[in-house]
Amino acid sequence: MNHIRIEDAFWNRYTKLVTAEIIPYQWRALNDQVEDAEPSHCISNFRIAAGLEQGDFSGWVFQDTDLAKWLEAVAYSLSYEQNTNLEKLADEAIELVGSAQEENGYLNTCFTIGYPGRQFKNLKEGHELYTAGHFIEAAVAYYKVTGKDRFLNIMRKTADLICDVFHTSRYENAVCGHEEIELALVKLADVTGEEKYRSMAFDFINRRGCEPNYLFTESDRDDYIDVWHDKNPYLNVYGQNHLPVREQKTAEGHAVRAVYLYCAMADLAYAYQDLALWQACENLYRNIVEKRMYLTGGIGSSGILERFTVDYDLPNDTNYSESCASIGFALFCRRMAQISGDAGYIDTMELALMNTVLSGIAMDGKSFFYVNPLEVWPRNCIPMTDKNHIKPIRQKWFGCACCPPNITRTLASLGEYVCFVEKNALWLNLFAGCTIETERDGEPLTIKIDSRFPYEGRVQLQVDGGGELKHTADEARHNTGRSETDASGTEHSSFELRIRIPAYAKNPCFTIDGKSVTPQVEHGYAVFRENWSHQCISFTFEMKAQFVYANPAVHADAGKTALMRGPLVYCLEEEDNGENLAALYADTNAPVRETFEPDLMGGTVVLHASGRRVSSRESVSLYSAQKPALEETSLTFVPYHSWGNRKPGEMAVWMKYMTTDQ
Amino acid sequence: MNHIRIEDAFWNRYTKLVTAEIIPYQWRALNDQVEDAEPSHCISNFRIAAGLEQGDFSGWVFQDTDLAKWLEAVAYSLSYEQNTNLEKLADEAIELVGSAQEENGYLNTCFTIGYPGRQFKNLKEGHELYTAGHFIEAAVAYYKVTGKDRFLNIMRKTADLICDVFHTSRYENAVCGHEEIELALVKLADVTGEEKYRSMAFDFINRRGCEPNYLFTESDRDDYIDVWHDKNPYLNVYGQNHLPVREQKTAEGHAVRAVYLYCAMADLAYAYQDLALWQACENLYRNIVEKRMYLTGGIGSSGILERFTVDYDLPNDTNYSESCASIGFALFCRRMAQISGDAGYIDTMELALMNTVLSGIAMDGKSFFYVNPLEVWPRNCIPMTDKNHIKPIRQKWFGCACCPPNITRTLASLGEYVCFVEKNALWLNLFAGCTIETERDGEPLTIKIDSRFPYEGRVQLQVDGGGELKHTADEARHNTGRSETDASGTEHSSFELRIRIPAYAKNPCFTIDGKSVTPQVEHGYAVFRENWSHQCISFTFEMKAQFVYANPAVHADAGKTALMRGPLVYCLEEEDNGENLAALYADTNAPVRETFEPDLMGGTVVLHASGRRVSSRESVSLYSAQKPALEETSLTFVPYHSWGNRKPGEMAVWMKYMTTDQ
Repeated sequence: MNHIRIEDAFWNRYTKLVTAEIIPYQWRALNDQVEDAEPSHCISNFRIAAGLEQGDFSGWVFQDTDLAKWLEAVAYSLSYEQNTNLEKLADEAIELVGSAQEENGYLNTCFTIGYPGRQFKNLKEGHELYTAGHFIEAAVAYYKVTGKDRFLNIMRKTADLICDVFHTSRYENAVCGHEEIELALVKLADVTGEEKYRSMAFDFINRRGCEPNYLFTESDRDDYIDVWHDKNPYLNVYGQNHLPVREQKTAEGHAVRAVYLYCAMADLAYAYQDLALWQACENLYRNIVEKRMYLTGGIGSSGILERFTVDYDLPNDTNYSESCASIGFALFCRRMAQISGDAGYIDTMELALMNTVLSGIAMDGKSFFYVNPLEVWPRNCIPMTDKNHIKPIRQKWFGCACCPPNITRTLASLGEYVCFVEKNALWLNLFAGCTIETERDGEPLTIKIDSRFPYEGRVQLQVDGGGELKHTADEARHNTGRSETDASGTEHSSFELRIRIPAYAKNPCFTIDGKSVTPQVEHGYAVFRENWSHQCISFTFEMKAQFVYANPAVHADAGKTALMRGPLVYCLEEEDNGENLAALYADTNAPVRETFEPDLMGGTVVLHASGRRVSSRESVSLYSAQKPALEETSLTFVPYHSWGNRKPGEMAVWMKYMTTDQ
Repeated sequence: MNHIRIEDAFWNRYTKLVTAEIIPYQWRALNDQVEDAEPSHCISNFRIAAGLEQGDFSGWVFQDTDLAKWLEAVAYSLSYEQNTNLEKLADEAIELVGSAQEENGYLNTCFTIGYPGRQFKNLKEGHELYTAGHFIEAAVAYYKVTGKDRFLNIMRKTADLICDVFHTSRYENAVCGHEEIELALVKLADVTGEEKYRSMAFDFINRRGCEPNYLFTESDRDDYIDVWHDKNPYLNVYGQNHLPVREQKTAEGHAVRAVYLYCAMADLAYAYQDLALWQACENLYRNIVEKRMYLTGGIGSSGILERFTVDYDLPNDTNYSESCASIGFALFCRRMAQISGDAGYIDTMELALMNTVLSGIAMDGKSFFYVNPLEVWPRNCIPMTDKNHIKPIRQKWFGCACCPPNITRTLASLGEYVCFVEKNALWLNLFAGCTIETERDGEPLTIKIDSRFPYEGRVQLQVDGGGELKHTADEARHNTGRSETDASGTEHSSFELRIRIPAYAKNPCFTIDGKSVTPQVEHGYAVFRENWSHQCISFTFEMKAQFVYANPAVHADAGKTALMRGPLVYCLEEEDNGENLAALYADTNAPVRETFEPDLMGGTVVLHASGRRVSSRESVSLYSAQKPALEETSLTFVPYHSWGNRKPGEMAVWMKYMTTDQ
């Protein structure tokens, strides 16, 4: 396995937290040992299912996945840093998982304890395949990092059961209400070489949204069990079950489900060279980024059902934009980039990761956001109102804890986002200081990357080993959606370095050993085919703060602007700008000043602009014919991902701007 | 009884609808005879309870109240216009009510059919006293108009049962989850002279929010029955059950419940000369109008629980602002005005009636809004999202039909809002053409009012009869909250005419028989104590359209303006202004042109302003650094109450304005 070790001023504050704080903290959470936090019951459920404790199942039907995501995070963290105690703890947890597994391979404590012998009788709500999927992902990661196959074998047994059951006539049209199993089975096929897993995933994809509609009619079956007690009618669109997947052109329904599905669609489009499926992936991606995505890479406009709504419906103070949805979206973008070789997908992935995913976690790693609004007025985020779901302060641990462990596993696997190390090419996607250890033609190749990003657009790569790298050309393997500019083949082993040039990078400059070069640029990647071994490559670009504007079709943002610097969306906080951020106007014609503040939230670039503030009214009247005056004011912005780490208060990404600026 | 007959160009379009269309339509609705509308089941439930049909109860627990409100509306309509067939239909319905009543006086088909013998076992959700209250209100109105006491006697029996049951030790702290019985019992006491009803109402008021908290602990009782199957915990604040009423300083919880409670509080503060209770009414009124009321007189900021939230939280596109809440608020304002003699309350009442209540009904009287947002983007008002409750098109009849019959009874009783005819004074509150027939010292007195309002500020009163009216002074009977400017008494019979001068009326001018006069103004009323019998009094004032601004503390409206003309709030509709109303800016410095368009929606004053529109973006990108251009455009405004009567489309009350206007 390739080895990527992150050593980066920006990212280390998060990745170090993973091992030092979050993984141990979450282990305590799984064991209900975090004071003042809602109990997880997760380990307890496994112990009950394994016969080690007496009791009833507690928590959500998908509660088991907390452990799966924790194990996956542990696996990734071990790839960065050996940790004998942690690995021992994980091995014990894996044994517990094995003990909770039923004889036939079935694994799900909710059903084993609560509905013995009544498995797969509510696929719409039961999350059984979803849960299995997360354990499969964890087992694959654990196997790849540690080489130990105990966990993998446990999950193969579960996967074999799924392949058997879901090819019986009873289940010939069946799919899971919450997608995840599909992408997991693809990973399992990759690591085991067993194609039946991939084929099962492809069947699930192909069944979805087709008649007869299994999920829609499932509750009519005699053996249906009501596990959720949901009084609402089932909405096909909620689970992307409204149309065959190749006919889906708009991102619909529950946002996390949607992007997990799209990940598998992309995987399978590539594996089976299915152009119709690939086209659907492109359509869905474009629908999201052109019409349904927040500036922060957040998705899911409605708090009710945590779902996509309609094009350009992007309210800033009532949206869901779940952390898990942006994680899934980043996973989808990563697959699209890897298949197509197009850096545009990485721009989007970076947006989701560096804004919404990072926003989900407090800087001490101990509290988390589920929901990531772009505007918060804490005083009106009260329970049992339309803003019920908006939390102005990160929560210690949620009873429904999907996001915290999902953020953890994402940070722990950061290397997979930073670069793609392929047989013949290394694609540098995110600018994070790191050491990449791989090999080329059997010889070790080490690339050490120094980065000042996102503080500055300055990245340096020191390449060591790997023999002499020669000019080469693309192979034609990326034949799904990727156009080749140079199809002439060469005979000798080739190895390319591809460095992403983000859309926001102005005046990109490359040097090799101090000498300016102008590499060819393909789909947003600077391509180095020349001999670049044993060299020092530097990449610098300008990345000034700039005001951005939404398409005016976004009603919520019409007449508003936001500040970005590189991939980072900035926001106003009450701490810096006083109360009532809605009363502020930016002066978009005045210069924006950038300062690096080393003591603020671990060191951050703060932006300063000038603007106006609607004066407070002296009289108590709510409405009046008197036009409020505008006072001059200065505006201070911090990165969105770091909001809510100081005193609780208002936050806003979008603000009004002066029409005098025209 | 005093007789007020509305003959008014503006109001007749609604009041004529009541008799000609709405009352017959609603009767068909109650009988499940309206095609394509959700069935009411209301009459069917009564027939089942009466033993005339077999079947189960269907509908909401408060479904009976549809019939009560219909009967109340019929009563009022009969006071304007004899209608033998309608009265016969009402008499039959009253007999049906009597047949459905249980031996002991209990009346509620939901419990009689569904929970026989288990009455008053879920006051929190059961709506039994609420339902009884609406029948009592209807019976009182029917008695006052027709003089027939059959219905009144039925409801006295129910009221007697309530007085008995709710003074037993089991119920000594009990109140109803949804207030209404309190104000109804006051009315019953007024018409019957039986003080025990008022005393029971006072007890209910005094018990509310006190320890031991009956509603909060009710579900712990052994005999509690779960009639609603609500999974949410009970929120004391939802039913104004969080504090003793005299200590409540902010309007909280479900808005309809709140204002029905406040009505009774005002009634009882006056009846018992309870200054602490009166002070609470004033505090609550001020909290609403200064911090929690929409420009349209709508109340209830959250779709979830249809409730008040916090000060200045007034989102325009997700609010509830239920028609019934504004009806209840108007009733509260009317009481506050009548007790205090202060016209300011009438300004608020007029706002609620002429904007939100009228908005609730289509111009053909056949479809209705429950929810009255100030901004609607139809495309994103989709089910199972945060905008689930927002309907861009009025609905034929709701399964939960509280608003349509409530609007009907309000329009049918318009005379009660137009003026207060008291023994010694006539208070003219709303400017509606009408004929008021009353008496003074036994002599008939007729006042015929001609009005061009709200098209123009021009009202003329022709007074006939009533003998010679002499100079007089206030009596000291309004001693709760009303300060007297002239306390010197006179011996002879006095009769004042008080004409409200609204806050929006500029340059108010009065003439008597063409001769300019300058009446004394007390608390917003022009007071005529001089001899004004047999005279023609005219009142004219200016009422130009003007831009208004919310207190900047209202985040949703900061940097925005709205147009009003007199009490009418105006709005932009897509029909007149094209799509994307959020992209429009008003030029608040340019003049607003007013045109009367006789063919538009029955004749209406349309407003025209100039402004700018954010240009559409040509590229598909959702976000960009390119600032959208602003194009000049003209803006057309129609009254908010008439929105949604043409093609379905966007609507907005608040719009941005040019900061160049400063």
